[in-house]
Amino acid sequence: MRYAVLGTGEVGRTLGGRLVELGHEVTLGSRSEDNPVAREWSTAAAGRAHAGTFAQAAAASEVVINAVGGRVALEALGAVGAGHLDGKVVVDVSNPLAFEDGQPRLDPVESDSVGERIQQAFPHARVVKTLNTVNCQVMVDPGRVPGGHAVFVCGENADAKEQVKELLGEFGWPAGRVLDLGGIRSARAVEMYLPLWLTMFREFGHADFNIEVCRAR
Amino acid sequence: MRYAVLGTGEVGRTLGGRLVELGHEVTLGSRSEDNPVAREWSTAAAGRAHAGTFAQAAAASEVVINAVGGRVALEALGAVGAGHLDGKVVVDVSNPLAFEDGQPRLDPVESDSVGERIQQAFPHARVVKTLNTVNCQVMVDPGRVPGGHAVFVCGENADAKEQVKELLGEFGWPAGRVLDLGGIRSARAVEMYLPLWLTMFREFGHADFNIEVCRAR
Repeated sequence: MRYAVLGTGEVGRTLGGRLVELGHEVTLGSRSEDNPVAREWSTAAAGRAHAGTFAQAAAASEVVINAVGGRVALEALGAVGAGHLDGKVVVDVSNPLAFEDGQPRLDPVESDSVGERIQQAFPHARVVKTLNTVNCQVMVDPGRVPGGHAVFVCGENADAKEQVKELLGEFGWPAGRVLDLGGIRSARAVEMYLPLWLTMFREFGHADFNIEVCRAR
Repeated sequence: MRYAVLGTGEVGRTLGGRLVELGHEVTLGSRSEDNPVAREWSTAAAGRAHAGTFAQAAAASEVVINAVGGRVALEALGAVGAGHLDGKVVVDVSNPLAFEDGQPRLDPVESDSVGERIQQAFPHARVVKTLNTVNCQVMVDPGRVPGGHAVFVCGENADAKEQVKELLGEFGWPAGRVLDLGGIRSARAVEMYLPLWLTMFREFGHADFNIEVCRAR
């Protein structure tokens, strides 16, 4: 499969690197064509790894993964343009993390979400929100955390969610641990989990944790 | 122990009923002295169950549990008055659930929390936020949900948190499943979990679920 990974930060490089290892063609997208981080990554990650602008990455790919911060997601996807997104699966792993007076905040929060904003801005893309509830190392290697912990998916298109479940399976998430939370509106719920994640991160002193959902039936 | 349970809704009656079963003296507090629900409850729940105003309940008790809705918590505790709260452990199990256009919302959200507001309004009370992340049936009987799922505590006073951990132990929460999230500011994080809880409640069709926290170390 050909993947665009938008964003050259730790999340983008981690996702892109694992996808290359899994045998996929990956273009890491950034604002400019000559982003040195993306160039270095594509050289180090061998023949199936490429670098380009956001638009070039998406144009070259069947699936687009949004790995830029949630607050700049619409800007990055706007640079791609609807023409390279329509009909494609767009996987949004971002959180709308902002800082105000040094304190982490969400923007938007509760009345809207990054996942919904992307789907609304690109109504012909098939947006799936997932993986934003774990650290990027855990995203691509859930075995780092013991136990049968869960990852959530939400989105309007059932086929797109099935395709994302297959991708999650390649990363090591068993099908039984992928919880479908319905439509893209549930992106609000999983994005609002971030403060609890950040609190546990502070208390534990590391990011190798996740939640399991226990249920009576 | 003598407990005041403020609130005659399902949460208050469930907590109060279990505390009576456990051998404690419980006064169910409500706005008015002649609340018929509280009167009926106190009659049905035998000799250790009493009913009274918010202030009477707190005056008669060593520990005060806030089981009214988060949005009216300050009003209920205001009716109690600082004189009956100072120095006492105040257990806040509420969520700031509101409805707007038929949609559940949190008020306050993110920049503040019910737990913090109570602690700020009554600086000499020893506020502990806990149990708000599960349904009231699960609060008093965690064995309804299989697995080693977790409950959170946060608050400024370590002794108060220890006392609440003992209470949680009486309800059936093993000590190893009680996660201390630090100071009362973490109430924001656990209150913001509510949208994810509500989403899972909708998807599962029942409330007998909870999260376990899996961690590498």
